[in-house]
Amino acid sequence: MVDKIELHADRLSRVNQALEAEDFATIEALLAELEPAEIAILLESLPHDDRALVWARVSRDDDGEVLLHVHDEARASLLEDMDSEEIVAATEGMDSTDLAELIELLPEDVGDDVLRAMDAQQRLRVETMLAYDEDTAGRLMHVDTVSVRADVELEVVQRYLRFQGDAVPENTDMVMVVDREGVFVGRLPLARLVTRDQELTVAEVMDTEVDTIPATMSAHDVASLFETHDLVSAPVVDDDGRLLGRVTIDDVVDIIRGEADHTLMNMAGLDEEEDLFAPVLPSARRRAVWLGINLLTAFLAAWVIGLFQGTLEKIVALAVLMPIVASMGGIAGSQTLTLTIRGLALGQIGKSNSRWLLNKEMGIAAINGVIWALVVAVIAYLWFGNPMIGAVIGAALVINMLAAGIAGILVPLTLKRMGIDPALSGAVILTTVTDVVGFMSFLGLATLFLL
Amino acid sequence: MVDKIELHADRLSRVNQALEAEDFATIEALLAELEPAEIAILLESLPHDDRALVWARVSRDDDGEVLLHVHDEARASLLEDMDSEEIVAATEGMDSTDLAELIELLPEDVGDDVLRAMDAQQRLRVETMLAYDEDTAGRLMHVDTVSVRADVELEVVQRYLRFQGDAVPENTDMVMVVDREGVFVGRLPLARLVTRDQELTVAEVMDTEVDTIPATMSAHDVASLFETHDLVSAPVVDDDGRLLGRVTIDDVVDIIRGEADHTLMNMAGLDEEEDLFAPVLPSARRRAVWLGINLLTAFLAAWVIGLFQGTLEKIVALAVLMPIVASMGGIAGSQTLTLTIRGLALGQIGKSNSRWLLNKEMGIAAINGVIWALVVAVIAYLWFGNPMIGAVIGAALVINMLAAGIAGILVPLTLKRMGIDPALSGAVILTTVTDVVGFMSFLGLATLFLL
Repeated sequence: MVDKIELHADRLSRVNQALEAEDFATIEALLAELEPAEIAILLESLPHDDRALVWARVSRDDDGEVLLHVHDEARASLLEDMDSEEIVAATEGMDSTDLAELIELLPEDVGDDVLRAMDAQQRLRVETMLAYDEDTAGRLMHVDTVSVRADVELEVVQRYLRFQGDAVPENTDMVMVVDREGVFVGRLPLARLVTRDQELTVAEVMDTEVDTIPATMSAHDVASLFETHDLVSAPVVDDDGRLLGRVTIDDVVDIIRGEADHTLMNMAGLDEEEDLFAPVLPSARRRAVWLGINLLTAFLAAWVIGLFQGTLEKIVALAVLMPIVASMGGIAGSQTLTLTIRGLALGQIGKSNSRWLLNKEMGIAAINGVIWALVVAVIAYLWFGNPMIGAVIGAALVINMLAAGIAGILVPLTLKRMGIDPALSGAVILTTVTDVVGFMSFLGLATLFLL
Repeated sequence: MVDKIELHADRLSRVNQALEAEDFATIEALLAELEPAEIAILLESLPHDDRALVWARVSRDDDGEVLLHVHDEARASLLEDMDSEEIVAATEGMDSTDLAELIELLPEDVGDDVLRAMDAQQRLRVETMLAYDEDTAGRLMHVDTVSVRADVELEVVQRYLRFQGDAVPENTDMVMVVDREGVFVGRLPLARLVTRDQELTVAEVMDTEVDTIPATMSAHDVASLFETHDLVSAPVVDDDGRLLGRVTIDDVVDIIRGEADHTLMNMAGLDEEEDLFAPVLPSARRRAVWLGINLLTAFLAAWVIGLFQGTLEKIVALAVLMPIVASMGGIAGSQTLTLTIRGLALGQIGKSNSRWLLNKEMGIAAINGVIWALVVAVIAYLWFGNPMIGAVIGAALVINMLAAGIAGILVPLTLKRMGIDPALSGAVILTTVTDVVGFMSFLGLATLFLL
């Protein structure tokens, strides 16, 4: 077990060696041992040409699940190599939740082929799920729940379950209780079913204090709910309270992982679906946009410096020192920004405490600004032998760190209020502020006091 | 349900209003309605003085669970306000997994008090868990599993479970199967227990293809295993294969969330346990260290610029344009760095494909370098009327973006090989590279070709 994990890198190098030697038997043998999720990681670790070669050797039984485990961009590269027939074959044996997810990701005509290939009951289930928006509980839920009435005895429930046999999903840990109209009234954990007196009725034993989830609830809210209420599974209901299915924590894990990933990647101007092993050209094109946006910022900073060309010509030491002011502001600001973005994601920041937070960050900026300003001022004085240069850079540093603290709070809060993801654009705006304020204050003060 | 989530900010402002009005009855009524995890978020959203006031009003029954849900630093602030007796009272009714986690976080003497207050069986369980290192499966596991022998009939298992009654944990979804020595041999999902013919023996029905987890496995590896194998729960065994307990996916969720958080916060030089509402002084002290490290980087960049004072004195336009070269390198580098750090975390990067990746990033850097170099060169030429300035900044930009691409791959890979977290120090080292290479190449080329 442990070995399997430790050896992921080894596995990859074995595949690479086999690819070089064109030894496909070894690759097939290796793939046969792996779980779909492991095959997905392996495929994502390969450049596209090699990926296609390995993908062709993945067993048909695993195809569908592998497709679900890879990121969007890598999935597109895999689907390119399959015709409609192969895709339909890959979906055999997948459950309706996975099918709905996959169909949404397929080209429309291929998705229709997949739907047509299902039996009537399965198609109905999948179409019910597809009627809900992407990223809602209606899409996350599993519809193969077992439900019973409240007025029967536990013994009867047991007989019913034995009668159902294999139709009861392996991972069932509770039976749902519904009324005549299919409205959810409670649930009966299997642990209760088997430990209680069998002559009791479901109503006497069932759990009625259950958090139900409307099918239209967003995936993000579902994840929050699972986290704050420590849920393992929850029933999904329609507007009239009728039971539709249930969401379980293992589906929620993917959402949690995806959201964290989203913040990390967005802060660097990347898409979380980015394929690490995509070819050079499309990757270059995507990243070019972000570089272009940042270039505007850089030119704005250059323009500010350009305003002070006269000053710089007279005191070249300013050109040497000015990046320090901008850089320290940038670092301090990005710390505050990251804390604020995380606080917003965790729901810790509201209107009523943002004022307090702003004061706190300004306090921190003032303290650290003054401390590091003194250090920088002394070094600048010793370096260039001019005490006024030290005084000017110290003052500029304090000003820029205060600006960084304020921007680190206000920029993400404002973006959030405008409905813009603060992780994506927060860093660019913050850098613009700290560059402009940094160069402006340092060169401006120098112009006033040093010339 | 949805309302509860939407209203978190409202809840916070109600609490703040009540605090201002010193209306503690309202606060107590609100707290009584909330789950421990929600109380934890609320407490983390308050400055320390207010936090203490609200904390004093949390019901004793919730105290222990709230303590587990808050981050380390916030927890320390809550524990400050409790004496040993109150802490012992708070631990009543907590399960052994939670108790082991909490004891580890308490001051030693308080932890001993908590241990002494338990009954003998509970203490034995907790001490067994505490014998394992922090962040291992031995600490994550729940030890209250129900186990049976393989040779009994399902009917007998059902009678045994009914006899056990409330001693069977509510969330049990499977019974563990062990031999005479307590060695794990398989597991029997409750769904199978209730759907199969009751005269079959456990051996005929049980699931033997089970991933077992050694108690010493790291929490990180446990999380990977759950993700790659799509597990919902897994048995934990000792070196001899004897069953110790089980880990369930809801415990793994916290690890996954924590790891993602760790990367995000570390990339800004922050600790993921940082308390957003900590007082100013300790926060300022912690962040000062990171600023100091970055100041060294900034001075290194200044020193490089200082080498070219003579050149800058003659052509002041260079001072105006030089931040553009450093900034574009920094942005390009941080994109590659983020992708590499995520690739390492997902296990996508090994020795055998890092070479390919390096070539890819150099390809992207070359393409984007040349494109943006042309743009910058034209603008610089138009701005300062000197075609050579355009040529020099363009060349420097290409050089710096190539350096950024190479450093974005090699810095995290090298740090990882040295056992250092690439998320924490990667960004500082990368910025140092792009600043030094950027200023050096731009001012160096200018000195060679423009003077």
